[in-house]
Amino acid sequence: MVEEIPVKKQQNTEIRAEDFRITEEPFYLPAGNEAVLFQAAYDARLPVMLKGPTGCGKTRFVQHMSFRLGRPLITVACHEDLFVSDLVGRYILKNDETVWRDGPLTTAVRMGAICYFDEIVEARKDTTVVIHPLTDDRRTLYIDKKGEVIPAHPDFLLVISYNPGYQSVLKDMKQSTRQRFTALTFDYPAAEHEITIICKEAGVDQETADRLVRLGTRIRNIREHGLTEGASTRLLIYAARLIRQGVAGADACRAAICQPLTDDEGLQETLDDLVKDLF
Amino acid sequence: MVEEIPVKKQQNTEIRAEDFRITEEPFYLPAGNEAVLFQAAYDARLPVMLKGPTGCGKTRFVQHMSFRLGRPLITVACHEDLFVSDLVGRYILKNDETVWRDGPLTTAVRMGAICYFDEIVEARKDTTVVIHPLTDDRRTLYIDKKGEVIPAHPDFLLVISYNPGYQSVLKDMKQSTRQRFTALTFDYPAAEHEITIICKEAGVDQETADRLVRLGTRIRNIREHGLTEGASTRLLIYAARLIRQGVAGADACRAAICQPLTDDEGLQETLDDLVKDLF
Amino acid sequence: MVEEIPVKKQQNTEIRAEDFRITEEPFYLPAGNEAVLFQAAYDARLPVMLKGPTGCGKTRFVQHMSFRLGRPLITVACHEDLFVSDLVGRYILKNDETVWRDGPLTTAVRMGAICYFDEIVEARKDTTVVIHPLTDDRRTLYIDKKGEVIPAHPDFLLVISYNPGYQSVLKDMKQSTRQRFTALTFDYPAAEHEITIICKEAGVDQETADRLVRLGTRIRNIREHGLTEGASTRLLIYAARLIRQGVAGADACRAAICQPLTDDEGLQETLDDLVKDLF
Amino acid sequence: MVEEIPVKKQQNTEIRAEDFRITEEPFYLPAGNEAVLFQAAYDARLPVMLKGPTGCGKTRFVQHMSFRLGRPLITVACHEDLFVSDLVGRYILKNDETVWRDGPLTTAVRMGAICYFDEIVEARKDTTVVIHPLTDDRRTLYIDKKGEVIPAHPDFLLVISYNPGYQSVLKDMKQSTRQRFTALTFDYPAAEHEITIICKEAGVDQETADRLVRLGTRIRNIREHGLTEGASTRLLIYAARLIRQGVAGADACRAAICQPLTDDEGLQETLDDLVKDLF
Amino acid sequence: MVEEIPVKKQQNTEIRAEDFRITEEPFYLPAGNEAVLFQAAYDARLPVMLKGPTGCGKTRFVQHMSFRLGRPLITVACHEDLFVSDLVGRYILKNDETVWRDGPLTTAVRMGAICYFDEIVEARKDTTVVIHPLTDDRRTLYIDKKGEVIPAHPDFLLVISYNPGYQSVLKDMKQSTRQRFTALTFDYPAAEHEITIICKEAGVDQETADRLVRLGTRIRNIREHGLTEGASTRLLIYAARLIRQGVAGADACRAAICQPLTDDEGLQETLDDLVKDLF
Amino acid sequence: MVEEIPVKKQQNTEIRAEDFRITEEPFYLPAGNEAVLFQAAYDARLPVMLKGPTGCGKTRFVQHMSFRLGRPLITVACHEDLFVSDLVGRYILKNDETVWRDGPLTTAVRMGAICYFDEIVEARKDTTVVIHPLTDDRRTLYIDKKGEVIPAHPDFLLVISYNPGYQSVLKDMKQSTRQRFTALTFDYPAAEHEITIICKEAGVDQETADRLVRLGTRIRNIREHGLTEGASTRLLIYAARLIRQGVAGADACRAAICQPLTDDEGLQETLDDLVKDLF
Repeated sequence: MVEEIPVKKQQNTEIRAEDFRITEEPFYLPAGNEAVLFQAAYDARLPVMLKGPTGCGKTRFVQHMSFRLGRPLITVACHEDLFVSDLVGRYILKNDETVWRDGPLTTAVRMGAICYFDEIVEARKDTTVVIHPLTDDRRTLYIDKKGEVIPAHPDFLLVISYNPGYQSVLKDMKQSTRQRFTALTFDYPAAEHEITIICKEAGVDQETADRLVRLGTRIRNIREHGLTEGASTRLLIYAARLIRQGVAGADACRAAICQPLTDDEGLQETLDDLVKDLF
Repeated sequence: MVEEIPVKKQQNTEIRAEDFRITEEPFYLPAGNEAVLFQAAYDARLPVMLKGPTGCGKTRFVQHMSFRLGRPLITVACHEDLFVSDLVGRYILKNDETVWRDGPLTTAVRMGAICYFDEIVEARKDTTVVIHPLTDDRRTLYIDKKGEVIPAHPDFLLVISYNPGYQSVLKDMKQSTRQRFTALTFDYPAAEHEITIICKEAGVDQETADRLVRLGTRIRNIREHGLTEGASTRLLIYAARLIRQGVAGADACRAAICQPLTDDEGLQETLDDLVKDLF
Repeated sequence: MVEEIPVKKQQNTEIRAEDFRITEEPFYLPAGNEAVLFQAAYDARLPVMLKGPTGCGKTRFVQHMSFRLGRPLITVACHEDLFVSDLVGRYILKNDETVWRDGPLTTAVRMGAICYFDEIVEARKDTTVVIHPLTDDRRTLYIDKKGEVIPAHPDFLLVISYNPGYQSVLKDMKQSTRQRFTALTFDYPAAEHEITIICKEAGVDQETADRLVRLGTRIRNIREHGLTEGASTRLLIYAARLIRQGVAGADACRAAICQPLTDDEGLQETLDDLVKDLF
Repeated sequence: MVEEIPVKKQQNTEIRAEDFRITEEPFYLPAGNEAVLFQAAYDARLPVMLKGPTGCGKTRFVQHMSFRLGRPLITVACHEDLFVSDLVGRYILKNDETVWRDGPLTTAVRMGAICYFDEIVEARKDTTVVIHPLTDDRRTLYIDKKGEVIPAHPDFLLVISYNPGYQSVLKDMKQSTRQRFTALTFDYPAAEHEITIICKEAGVDQETADRLVRLGTRIRNIREHGLTEGASTRLLIYAARLIRQGVAGADACRAAICQPLTDDEGLQETLDDLVKDLF
Repeated sequence: MVEEIPVKKQQNTEIRAEDFRITEEPFYLPAGNEAVLFQAAYDARLPVMLKGPTGCGKTRFVQHMSFRLGRPLITVACHEDLFVSDLVGRYILKNDETVWRDGPLTTAVRMGAICYFDEIVEARKDTTVVIHPLTDDRRTLYIDKKGEVIPAHPDFLLVISYNPGYQSVLKDMKQSTRQRFTALTFDYPAAEHEITIICKEAGVDQETADRLVRLGTRIRNIREHGLTEGASTRLLIYAARLIRQGVAGADACRAAICQPLTDDEGLQETLDDLVKDLF
Repeated sequence: MVEEIPVKKQQNTEIRAEDFRITEEPFYLPAGNEAVLFQAAYDARLPVMLKGPTGCGKTRFVQHMSFRLGRPLITVACHEDLFVSDLVGRYILKNDETVWRDGPLTTAVRMGAICYFDEIVEARKDTTVVIHPLTDDRRTLYIDKKGEVIPAHPDFLLVISYNPGYQSVLKDMKQSTRQRFTALTFDYPAAEHEITIICKEAGVDQETADRLVRLGTRIRNIREHGLTEGASTRLLIYAARLIRQGVAGADACRAAICQPLTDDEGLQETLDDLVKDLF
């Protein structure tokens, strides 16, 4: 399928580091020494892998560290139809001339950005291979279409995230890829931290946040009852926001926490009991 | 396969919000607090997921809410051959110039429409990934073909629907997607509501609608006998319309309700007994 | 693979309703109230699904009803490589201009034809999704390539056929599609009807037709012995035509009925015994 | 992959019936009434299916009948990458003009040729669907790329072949296709016939041919020992030709009959014993 | 993916038989009557299939026979991405003209070369079908892209090779293909022959070659212990060459014979014991 | 998908051997006679296969040998979407002329480089076939797109690597490929060697390196507890670098060694105990 037609007269598309720089400090409450370790890995220019469940703050952490390190952040959401040329770049027609347009990875390599591959296991295998020379002492990107080898900018760092809960035979990360990264493990925030986060993000009072966190904790504890994953901090924030819009607590929890988590009717009843206990 | 050939001289194709605005109030009978919750989610700009069986009114509900909120509605029927460029847009040739044409999602993001993805689990995985940054606090759409990041219009909202009865290992929605939505659960309307709906939609009398609803209820109760799904309100309306055309009640029920539901001969006999009881 | 090259100088290809109108009444012997029900469904503009085995007259019935209703008939034989653009249309180059060419479904929607999808379960899933908005109260066709929504002509009707005997896990019709249609079930004609049909279609005498129908009935009764499907009326007509060419009855039955039905040698012997009994 | 580049200046490529007419009578020894039945089917214009094992003379029979009927013969070897456009035709560029070029099926339909699909079960499903309207009373070919319906020439006939021994779940012929054909079953020729054929085709004496046929018969009788298929007449002719080149009988049989039939060493020994008995 | 861009100004690419003629006699030591049988098959123009394990001399034999017969040799290494157009040819742009470029098979058919398909079972099915008419008495190549039927040059011969050890359900050769070839079976050379070959190819003394052959024979005898295939003559030659470079015998055998054969550690120990016995 | 658009005005892209020459000696500590064997194989121009686990120094060894032999090194990281044209080259448009651009393999063959295919089992099968004629006495590369046979430069050598631990039914290397290579087996370095490497690569003291190596050895010894692969030397170096950045030893080991190795919580505890013993 012809998905893209050559661009003849196009607006200027210069990509500048400023566009990817994070100008306001993203709110992030450290759970442990993850910021220290990230800083050390960055200083040694070792690639970093963030492991952890959905919605526990990995993306926010990368935004936070990019701000702290003063580096632009380029994010690539991985999926199984992401081709190498989507990352590295391609030739396009422009005013009857053919010009090369860098993809996001090439841009990051050149400008010394932090390049963040979200959910790396979803990516195609060829995509994984292209990052290998960027993660060992070569620190180069090979653009086979141009026959060009680009040495990474001294400030460049590759960061990837993945959710170990999704690991499957088909989508496992190969040891030859894994063993190219230092790894930081994330989990749901501790209760007092999560309360602070919910208050800040949803604008609710301490009491509401506390109840929501207690609900979240209980749900995470019944994971062995059949839930694929526990309730993320994000869902607790969603419920808090609905409550702030005037929705009753129990209704907000059902719509923002219980229903998104599962379609199983038995589990919904269990979740409903937990909600009733608290709201 | 070359499916599309560049467009050189094409009629003006400006897309205006007016074309997607719903001008007459679509008939919708609320079953519970779904309208209130949707309103609250919209006010907090939280993405919404509608869960429920075939033909129980999810699409109608979105039309209804779009009218009430005064927002244009752009609907995308998901299927496994829907590519990201079908959603986001592509470059096309026009009068020897190459111009970018926004896809329906980009249009919705720019104009502040409600964008409704019908049967999201049918979509390709890359399609699912593209909506992620629209559903967290970034509220942005990244168009990799243009290297452009579009912040969503303040009025934009993403709504998705899916049928939990179809969930399978292959087409399950990932937790990382689920946990980005508040969820409203739909079911067949209560009897008195369904009677009102049938009378209004098919123009039949109360008595006919009542019998049809009783038939529908009984069929839904025998689901454990092997029916994949119960009879939808839509099918009851179909039968009512055939009756209104002068078809005998039993014939109408067989053609509009029993035969569409299943090919199993044993089940057809069971259904036929239910029909004979009522018509 | 480039399968089609742009058409620069092509003969006029205006599509006119007249080309699809059936001008002579196709012979069809009603088996029950199927014509009445079809008429009622058409009057209520409810989409129709024809269910039944191979070669029992579904296609002929649609031709017949199209003639009686005075509507043009556009037939689409479904298969797994039929793309949405094959149905809806595509842009092509013509005399250096790019013009849009409607596909058969768009043509039918515009001219108010009956559009008949033969063996719908063979179609790709995206094809199925595109007909959804045509089968509910929206009655619209959305052409995403043009960003155009076409309201169906008031006389338009969608008819689909499928053979429940082919149903499989892979090629099942989804409830969300099924529950958009009224359904008429077809089966082999009653004996006296089938005799009349064979006499008329093959030009043989009553006696020959009677023997063939008795053979057909017996074969259909031994389906549980391993035949995937019974002998269709079409095959009985084929045998009758060979007989009319002077072929001996038994030879004609073997060549036109037994051999096409199965490759199993044991079954062939059983079928041969049935033939010998009658010819 | 771009497999074909538009043809600008090409030699004249008019296709004439003469090119496909068989001018010398192909040698064919009838085994039974197959020629009579084919003639009758042709006179009634009923499509014909030839069933039988590899190398037993199906292709030769079609050539023979085409000669006898004085009709051109167009053969299409089916395989799983044969697209509809390979059969029906496509648009190509020629001297800056775009012209339509008929594929072999369209050519046959227009000129009234016998169109022979060899090993039809190997074809893609869409290919099978395109022949349906040619095999019922419509006798039309629908070219969707041109929106053109071509009525078949009165002399046109469709013939297909397939090998029931290859039937598998994946490559079975659907009943809806099977029940559109009369069927002639082929098998290895009777001994005296096969001797005549070998003498004629390989130029060996009666004695050699007789021994080869006895070998062939014995091999066919041990099929239950694990051979997928028996030795074809073609292989017996190959052995006869090697013998005629001066190769010793046993060596010729091993190279031309035993080794091509199987890779199983145990079976080779069994076959070798049969060879030693006769040569 | 656009893999190839039209060639506008290209150097002359006339293909001449001389380029494919083998001018020096390739060393080949006959194992039995294979050269006689090949000669007879060539004289009768019967297609030839070479069966045998990896590295036992099939390719060398074809080179040898091509030299002896004075025919050019065109080799095609088969793989699952070899398309028919890679064999038959395609249209390309050249100086604004479109010209046809023959593929290797068409070239061989026209010039009367021996065309050698190496590892035919790896080829795509469509590739196999295209050679069928070249292997029966038609001896023609049908180029569907040009609508041209090319009669084979009288000197043309088709030769294929395959390794019965690779046969699998997925990649089996169909009987309808097998039964079009005479077959010659190859195996590892007899000990005295193999010694001569190794001396000649690696330039080592008789004693070294003798030890290597004894090692090879023992390894072939332990195939039932889990080796997929025995040590090829090629590997013995490799070891001999390393020895000739001054590497110690045991080290050379491990690097050139044992390690390439298997990754199984237990088997490596067994192989190592065999090596130690001899070096 | 159109991934690449023709290049009209592009910077000069001459590829020179100097660009691929390694100018500084890469640090490599020999484990045994691998350098001697590689030298002998190179002198005899025998292709070389490097077998061994992830991160044990195969790539570094090839860089080292390329430097010692004074040959340019061209590396190709194999993956399942690497097409033959990516290796061999393709035609591209340049200033309205079409020019051929050699791929990395062709470049290596012409300039006499060492061409290194990293993780060959990941490559597509067609890619594997294209190297066959380069690995036997033909030493030629056949470019089918140009109909050109390129004899390899006398200094050219093909080197491949693969990890036996990844071998699977789907991605096994065929014997017909394996038996074309001499093979060198790699493993983790001996303790004293590994200490030297870590000191040199990470700049830590002997004591730290010693502890890390002891940890690495213990982890490799518990592989049977469920680890897919042991800790590579690379990971030990990573930990050493974090320590050098001031991170506490245990934290560094967890982030750089334990977390990258596995997601299994039980295994993490076991690994943690090993860490605690040493740091």
